[in-house]
Amino acid sequence: MAQISLSRRLRRTPFSDGVEAAGVKGYTVYNRMLLATVFESVEADYRHLKNHVQVWDVSCERQVELRGPDAARLMQMLTPRDLRRMLPGQCFYVPIVDETGGMLNDPVAVKLSEDRWWISIADSDLLLWVKGIANGYRLDVLVDEPDVSPLAIQGPKADDLLARVFGDRVRDIRFFKFDKFEFEGRELAIARSGYSKQGGFEIYVEGSDIGMPLWNALFAAGEDLLVRAGCPNLIERIEGGLLSYGNDMTDDNTPHECGLGKFCNTHTAIGCIGRDALLRVAKEGPVQQIRPIAIDGDAVPPCDRPWPIVAGGKRIGQITSAAWSPDFGTNVSIGMVKLSHWEPGTRIEIETPDGMRGATVREKFWI
Amino acid sequence: MAQISLSRRLRRTPFSDGVEAAGVKGYTVYNRMLLATVFESVEADYRHLKNHVQVWDVSCERQVELRGPDAARLMQMLTPRDLRRMLPGQCFYVPIVDETGGMLNDPVAVKLSEDRWWISIADSDLLLWVKGIANGYRLDVLVDEPDVSPLAIQGPKADDLLARVFGDRVRDIRFFKFDKFEFEGRELAIARSGYSKQGGFEIYVEGSDIGMPLWNALFAAGEDLLVRAGCPNLIERIEGGLLSYGNDMTDDNTPHECGLGKFCNTHTAIGCIGRDALLRVAKEGPVQQIRPIAIDGDAVPPCDRPWPIVAGGKRIGQITSAAWSPDFGTNVSIGMVKLSHWEPGTRIEIETPDGMRGATVREKFWI
Repeated sequence: MAQISLSRRLRRTPFSDGVEAAGVKGYTVYNRMLLATVFESVEADYRHLKNHVQVWDVSCERQVELRGPDAARLMQMLTPRDLRRMLPGQCFYVPIVDETGGMLNDPVAVKLSEDRWWISIADSDLLLWVKGIANGYRLDVLVDEPDVSPLAIQGPKADDLLARVFGDRVRDIRFFKFDKFEFEGRELAIARSGYSKQGGFEIYVEGSDIGMPLWNALFAAGEDLLVRAGCPNLIERIEGGLLSYGNDMTDDNTPHECGLGKFCNTHTAIGCIGRDALLRVAKEGPVQQIRPIAIDGDAVPPCDRPWPIVAGGKRIGQITSAAWSPDFGTNVSIGMVKLSHWEPGTRIEIETPDGMRGATVREKFWI
Repeated sequence: MAQISLSRRLRRTPFSDGVEAAGVKGYTVYNRMLLATVFESVEADYRHLKNHVQVWDVSCERQVELRGPDAARLMQMLTPRDLRRMLPGQCFYVPIVDETGGMLNDPVAVKLSEDRWWISIADSDLLLWVKGIANGYRLDVLVDEPDVSPLAIQGPKADDLLARVFGDRVRDIRFFKFDKFEFEGRELAIARSGYSKQGGFEIYVEGSDIGMPLWNALFAAGEDLLVRAGCPNLIERIEGGLLSYGNDMTDDNTPHECGLGKFCNTHTAIGCIGRDALLRVAKEGPVQQIRPIAIDGDAVPPCDRPWPIVAGGKRIGQITSAAWSPDFGTNVSIGMVKLSHWEPGTRIEIETPDGMRGATVREKFWI
């Protein structure tokens, strides 16, 4: 396996010193920033995440801040989700599409106030698209990347850990809502959200200087909870059907192909740049869609490129994320499958680097 | 050192099989694509590059294609370099700026015809900015990433190697010009350019399917020239003053701060989005600028974050790229230095991870 060559271009985070001290073994690069992928081992990290609580440096979920009179209008131009009823204090998962309906990102929009929003982005320089649109349409809005680095607290003991640092009021935060809490004299937004199905929070750490103090406070408070440094876990996120932009979908895909039609209110999302294209897509329906797929046999090798899905000698899709699941005793995976073969129970074949494997299309993800 | 965790999101290239077979030891990620950083060792790769010829997989220099009646107008909106006299067959190094004059990229523009251009980009998703501008200004142009992957041939024997595969006509290509050559029935643009000072070419490989056939043809033809797989070399590019977007400059910097004022014809670049901002910058002049800096003492450690430059107890800049140069017997580096200390010969101090080092501002880069 090749090593990663570090440089300023692969940006460090306010928590990198903590991640390194915790013995990070693998990195990926996400939004041109370092993101840990493994500490003890992917399986050991998975087991720990499901039983205890982890602190994840997800600074790479960079924020795109919209500020000014046209902020809400611009936000609605970006997404087919209808944002009219969204209130300050809410987080919305929003597909972002271009004029062809192709997905540019699948971030979480955070409404701070009517004229101030954060977009907590997946892996694409969405800032450049938003700046280009704001400039081209001459909108009255400032678009920038603020000094905000999310820190996720994930796992069944997340409430207990966070209550010790921020007080019991954190237990009252509802799913995809946020509230403000104080740390060292600073007001921080904390949302009940995160890229796992084990429950937990994301702290929007505003100001790099309080990154390590907060990191250290969390570890000091959680020693008896067996808190550990962690990171988004490949196995758990596939079990939970959490899609990864750039892996499971790209700008070649519409939200409908990604199973995100429920986040598209295309008829009422007036102003959305991709609206005309998506109205056509919604009418005709997608001809391929993301599905959970169980792959037969022993643990598959790492999936570092799309694996063709075949049936009757023809390519009918591709697998884009796959891992062995200890809890379910099968290989869990995410694939894009053509209409002809996407019904639950359909038997298909996967071209893995180790050879052909039988597989089954499932109705639901595992967790 | 941490390993890199591979996934589809870190895109492979048409040449990845060749890069792996050649024994790549380190990777970075550039435009969400794998880029090799070391084969034998950075020093051994450097020595070989200066004496022989290397084939570099620089697919990560993705192309942004502009096609349509407004292509030339859009290209001029992106850059303060005056493009009116640029002819088809020419390549121009062009700073790309936003409305504040901040650098978004420093690519090479390739003019295929009046209504068809490629922008061969450095490390930022420039595609999204260009698409956003094209959409916002309702320009009549298609903006897309074509299936084009540059392959660089660099080193003193580059002409000899390429002539064996494409014929002696390649020797006639002038610096930053390109011509068309045939390979397996396909027309490929070959430019005399590349990210080293050792001379050579960049082949714009159109069509992933001919990637490995071309790679193999080059290695078969160049055995007695001692051709090797290579990659942009950290030491050589610092010696040569080749800047790295994301390392040596970001969107916080103007072209003038980066010493790229000579590529800004801001008065005549009518239509450039950053024109007003840059006219102010050009009038007042930058207050900090990139400089070559020789750092005293033994080899410095890898520079993975900005190192403060100090003088008289005050921070007056930062080092962003640094390496030990065997040929010059000193640490070569690139830094951004304030006006007060940027004169050649000025003695400054660098805060390296190993402690303080003396250093000298130089007039010119080493090669």
